[in-house]
Amino acid sequence: MPADLREARQAGVRALLAAEGVESLLVSHLPNIRYLTGFTGSAGLLLLEPDGAVLFTDFRYATQAPAEVGDAAEVEIDSASVWERLKHRCADRPDRTVGFEAHSLTVRDAGRLKKCARRTAPVGELVEGLRAVKAPEEVAAIAAAAELASAALAEVLPTVRPGQSELLVASRLEAALRRRGSEWHPFQTIVASGPRSALPHAHTTERVIGAGEFLLIDFGAQVDGYCADLTRTVVVGGRADARQREVYQAVHAAQWRARREIRAGMTGREADALARDLLVARGFGEAFGHSLGHGLGLEVHEAPRLSATAEAVLPVGAVVTIEPGLYLPGWGGVRLEDDIVLTAAGPQALSDGRTELVELV
Amino acid sequence: MPADLREARQAGVRALLAAEGVESLLVSHLPNIRYLTGFTGSAGLLLLEPDGAVLFTDFRYATQAPAEVGDAAEVEIDSASVWERLKHRCADRPDRTVGFEAHSLTVRDAGRLKKCARRTAPVGELVEGLRAVKAPEEVAAIAAAAELASAALAEVLPTVRPGQSELLVASRLEAALRRRGSEWHPFQTIVASGPRSALPHAHTTERVIGAGEFLLIDFGAQVDGYCADLTRTVVVGGRADARQREVYQAVHAAQWRARREIRAGMTGREADALARDLLVARGFGEAFGHSLGHGLGLEVHEAPRLSATAEAVLPVGAVVTIEPGLYLPGWGGVRLEDDIVLTAAGPQALSDGRTELVELV
Repeated sequence: MPADLREARQAGVRALLAAEGVESLLVSHLPNIRYLTGFTGSAGLLLLEPDGAVLFTDFRYATQAPAEVGDAAEVEIDSASVWERLKHRCADRPDRTVGFEAHSLTVRDAGRLKKCARRTAPVGELVEGLRAVKAPEEVAAIAAAAELASAALAEVLPTVRPGQSELLVASRLEAALRRRGSEWHPFQTIVASGPRSALPHAHTTERVIGAGEFLLIDFGAQVDGYCADLTRTVVVGGRADARQREVYQAVHAAQWRARREIRAGMTGREADALARDLLVARGFGEAFGHSLGHGLGLEVHEAPRLSATAEAVLPVGAVVTIEPGLYLPGWGGVRLEDDIVLTAAGPQALSDGRTELVELV
Repeated sequence: MPADLREARQAGVRALLAAEGVESLLVSHLPNIRYLTGFTGSAGLLLLEPDGAVLFTDFRYATQAPAEVGDAAEVEIDSASVWERLKHRCADRPDRTVGFEAHSLTVRDAGRLKKCARRTAPVGELVEGLRAVKAPEEVAAIAAAAELASAALAEVLPTVRPGQSELLVASRLEAALRRRGSEWHPFQTIVASGPRSALPHAHTTERVIGAGEFLLIDFGAQVDGYCADLTRTVVVGGRADARQREVYQAVHAAQWRARREIRAGMTGREADALARDLLVARGFGEAFGHSLGHGLGLEVHEAPRLSATAEAVLPVGAVVTIEPGLYLPGWGGVRLEDDIVLTAAGPQALSDGRTELVELV
């Protein structure tokens, strides 16, 4: 990550803090720490101060943290307690108010912070708000992750046959993702066949895929920390029957409409309605129980939300998933998901958008 | 999970709550919810009451949650806000004190809880304390995960050659794990070669493995929700040189001593010292900067801790990793990790313990 990008991000947070009358911010949410410093470790705290930043972490990152962070923060290593380090640091500036991320810090850690700083103040999702608007570098990373994901699926899909287990398909897909350079699996891969495709968050199991069944595959890739999130539903070992075709085409039409008509400036609720209204009109309202999508970036679920209760306006530069689905318990389900960036000129696809019905015969 | 096991667990928590004068507990930490109900979803809240339990979750789990939970809890589905549901539930019993998990609940959610219940009280790691002592079924699941992990490594290791990338090795190993039935990868697989093996929490990269280099592989498997966590370090494409052998044998001796001499009834610090004292005596104290190990179960890091600052006594039934390591920045590192259950009769290996130096020539 370029150093000037991190500087600009930290400056952005400082400006928001100043507006709230808070001098320093204890950043505890790890993706926020990564965003502001480049640190990718699994444990740490960042104190963002008016004139600099300090990352507190442990021995495991003694070499890695300074290499990743560079000039973006001082690094203090303490395997016994990062809170003791924080206390010493805060003691130098006892009159400063230290903000904390109320949506991330636990009640226990808020108690620890109170022992470090005389004045503390909860703040909202400041860093998340900045992260919701992607810089070109971030959009490029998500696009690269989406391209990698599509290529991995294109490699594996032709090998899928009735008689294989869901886990075998997942095993091949995950291997292809990693071989092609995905840094990690940003969430638990879903390979759900037949009636199990009706479970929106199904686990992948030993179940054997039957001929003529739906196979729902929800999977991701990660490049430079940024996530792609795709879902495809195909018919394995046969042609879709009339009911499968009807359900599939409803989801396809809803996804296509939302991908084409979503705009920055809409609320998340208005975007959600693009797909929901169409599915309700076709008599499928009950079967689309989750939201249309979510922001995508360093986390696989982040701001903004696209849901029936999301009143926030979608900013230019937001990257979101568009993933309507229909789930008929005991029978099966369909979900189609692509990744989109909202530009001033309209939505732009980051994933391949190949959502025409595929029948693997 | 047998229904009576969940009942016994819930009864155990109720007894601990009663001792603190708290009637109900809001369980927010998902692995604790899984432990008490069997629910495996990624979002939810559990209200444990004196006479029952209610799981609040969203549409995505409308079919899955009741199937998983059975009689262990009522299920209330609300995709708009589980907090509104909780508020209604608490309104029926306004005089009850609702405990919450201070180490898990965020400051923001504690504020939401205060709007639901007149009386609230922070509680400590009650459920985690129960989880630290494994039932035979839990030990069996961890052993099955460890066996699966060992078999996957045994399949892949003979195919590793200089000239392959770290990611290629990870890709094959992860595929073998999933094909053999691992439910998920419980943590980010580490495949770190040459000087990168000196990073205790290295990412897996496109780096090409050189002849005669260390290759450190830290990986896991999951069965019935329970995790195994193994690390092996091998030499690829050559014989170990004298320095590699010296470092390896130090770690091997430390790991072997700790595996043999650890006992329930020791403190975590005393267990840690079994390995640490030996490494210090060989002049490697500085290079072993992390702790000896950690508890293992539904989470890959849970109670008890084995570290230089852990004063808690290890209970009979604890399952822990034993994973000393030495890290020489710029040169390389070695870590060896096995999974052990502490029985009344002494430590018993759950993983294969094959830590003799392997040279892939």
